[in-house]
Amino acid sequence: MTAAHYSDKAHLWSLDPKNTFLNHGSYGAAPVAVLEEQSRLRKRMEAEPVSFMKRELEPLWDNAREEIAKFIGTTASNLVFVKNATMGVNTIFHSLDFNPGDEVLTTSHVYGACMEVLKYYEGKKGFTIKVATVPFPLKDEDEVVDALKNEITDRTKLLLIDHITSVTGTIFPLEKILLLFKQRGIEVLVDGAHAIGMLDLDIDKLGADYYVGNCHKWVCSPKGSAILYVHPSRQEKISPLQISYHYDLSDEWAKKFFWSGTDDPTAYLCVPTALQQMNDLYGSWELLRKHNRDLTLTAKQYLEKELGTTPPIPDNMIGSLANIYLGKGVLSAKGFNYIHPLPEVLFSAYGIVVPVMIFPKHDPQLWIRISVQAYNHISQYEYLAAALKELGYFI
Amino acid sequence: MTAAHYSDKAHLWSLDPKNTFLNHGSYGAAPVAVLEEQSRLRKRMEAEPVSFMKRELEPLWDNAREEIAKFIGTTASNLVFVKNATMGVNTIFHSLDFNPGDEVLTTSHVYGACMEVLKYYEGKKGFTIKVATVPFPLKDEDEVVDALKNEITDRTKLLLIDHITSVTGTIFPLEKILLLFKQRGIEVLVDGAHAIGMLDLDIDKLGADYYVGNCHKWVCSPKGSAILYVHPSRQEKISPLQISYHYDLSDEWAKKFFWSGTDDPTAYLCVPTALQQMNDLYGSWELLRKHNRDLTLTAKQYLEKELGTTPPIPDNMIGSLANIYLGKGVLSAKGFNYIHPLPEVLFSAYGIVVPVMIFPKHDPQLWIRISVQAYNHISQYEYLAAALKELGYFI
Repeated sequence: MTAAHYSDKAHLWSLDPKNTFLNHGSYGAAPVAVLEEQSRLRKRMEAEPVSFMKRELEPLWDNAREEIAKFIGTTASNLVFVKNATMGVNTIFHSLDFNPGDEVLTTSHVYGACMEVLKYYEGKKGFTIKVATVPFPLKDEDEVVDALKNEITDRTKLLLIDHITSVTGTIFPLEKILLLFKQRGIEVLVDGAHAIGMLDLDIDKLGADYYVGNCHKWVCSPKGSAILYVHPSRQEKISPLQISYHYDLSDEWAKKFFWSGTDDPTAYLCVPTALQQMNDLYGSWELLRKHNRDLTLTAKQYLEKELGTTPPIPDNMIGSLANIYLGKGVLSAKGFNYIHPLPEVLFSAYGIVVPVMIFPKHDPQLWIRISVQAYNHISQYEYLAAALKELGYFI
Repeated sequence: MTAAHYSDKAHLWSLDPKNTFLNHGSYGAAPVAVLEEQSRLRKRMEAEPVSFMKRELEPLWDNAREEIAKFIGTTASNLVFVKNATMGVNTIFHSLDFNPGDEVLTTSHVYGACMEVLKYYEGKKGFTIKVATVPFPLKDEDEVVDALKNEITDRTKLLLIDHITSVTGTIFPLEKILLLFKQRGIEVLVDGAHAIGMLDLDIDKLGADYYVGNCHKWVCSPKGSAILYVHPSRQEKISPLQISYHYDLSDEWAKKFFWSGTDDPTAYLCVPTALQQMNDLYGSWELLRKHNRDLTLTAKQYLEKELGTTPPIPDNMIGSLANIYLGKGVLSAKGFNYIHPLPEVLFSAYGIVVPVMIFPKHDPQLWIRISVQAYNHISQYEYLAAALKELGYFI
């Protein structure tokens, strides 16, 4: 069987070398230098907790917001840190009021946790969830736009849309979607959980009402660092999920989110270091993105060729995630840790870490979702292909 | 001037030796061994993020809940982790429904962030805040009970009560208060931000409906570890502040709180280590509590004698926090980081870290709030007294 090894950048991470980690997408992985910066900040915090919290934290927080704002094309005054994208989505639904009959539209590719948020607030806030069935495989971007267009009614109040889907690893045509909904005066909340770092974003130009995204995935900052962007015209309506001091202390919207009680704030303080570290890997973020996307396409094509399957979506909808078809699926038992036995088999027998997706629900198909980050090497995907073939997943 | 030094336990912490840290109460401080355990867990998490999150985390989370549940006299099924006590209070008000006219009662000693929570949800949920004016100085426990009794009406739906007040460092007579409100069928939410570790708790016996408390203060676990207890009869009404996967996956109440998106969960996983570390300092938690309380009373008496002031509350209402009277106060400018110039002066000129409180609002008095933890030594409070005298704070 092919010998798999990490790339020549992998020494910058602390991933266990005995595994083949092909799942950057689920939780991310932070470079050692970023984790060291976090340790340094924690030491400062523990050496004098009061000085850190009362004197040092706010300028560090402001600086981190400024750096990530610049990176995604907006200004710090429109952006606050949250723990993860799901918390950003919670914050929006926690804050907004709805009228009976209002519809919240999303797609069949929506992230499962966000669907839970919708279901919870549907009961609390009185709106109705509508789900546009977006096919997968997808012929082109227009299939996404058309599926959404068909579900718009005069009661559609808000669209919750993935920028890059989690279950199908697909870049949705956000510009076209935003155009469609803005023309109709419908608010749009973008779940960009995977987009920050994977795509070159210009948030101000996009013009979404709300945009949430993780930094711990494709910016490689420590776990628990994500952002919530709110368009200036909507900020008055959005309050922190957790009210604390500061809620009433500042007239500046972002400052209301500064303090949510004693917590470890170091994850988001490391975002500037992560941005710099990742930039320096290949000399620019553009080159890093190109590297990751090129390897994704190469690995995907190799796997498809070896397994004898065809690509579900066109290449222009692919970033650093890709689903490869494995065959017919069976809907899983309900459960977070149990989706399909295949990831367990791949991990225990081959040391391969890769998720398996079952989609869509009405006609379950089995997909393996590969991720590519700078520490990965083509040999790891060849090894995955060999393992899958050994297990009988080929046509 | 007296030379101040830390105790012979201080080497177990990483506090900056050039400061005199007398403010354990605000953010806590974790022993080095606890922070090392946290680093160890973080390394495991970063070496194989998926195994950690999907396989290792839930048993570790269960174990940590079991340990802290035992410590405070309840069972893990009634208890979940939150980031801090304020998040626990947010969770309750986020979850509960109120009818117009319902009154939520609290006291004039309520923690400021919790008052912000009340004000936010007063608007959203339609209840009315009522504040019982509890005097300070206090003659005895009954003054607290009487102040509350006077404000109960047939519209009182819920009491939010501090177990140990933050602004006045006073242990409230919780058993008597709970008796009063339970007799009348009024729900009680206890803000035990300072109580876990400082007091020997028996939560099941107390019989509060809701109890929140920090572990990062007097249990000395890492920042971002706190608990929310909900009485079994109330659990159906209480959902996580942040909805994610798991909300709909389990019939067990506590499990709904297990996953709130990718985050760093290591702070609460270190609670068992912190419980053990602190236990071992003097051989038992009982002896640690006795040590801290004895030193608090000694330090308080020394400061009062040196400054020529009298104790505001009887000793039986004191744990490891104590307010010492400094004279007439002036209500501060609105602001989180600016309350009074004295802490800045004490820090910059003497390296002393200690908060100043101004209370009550209608007749502002100036108080210095000392904390005592095992790393503190009587010489540090003597040094504080000398500094305060040098600054002219004596009668």
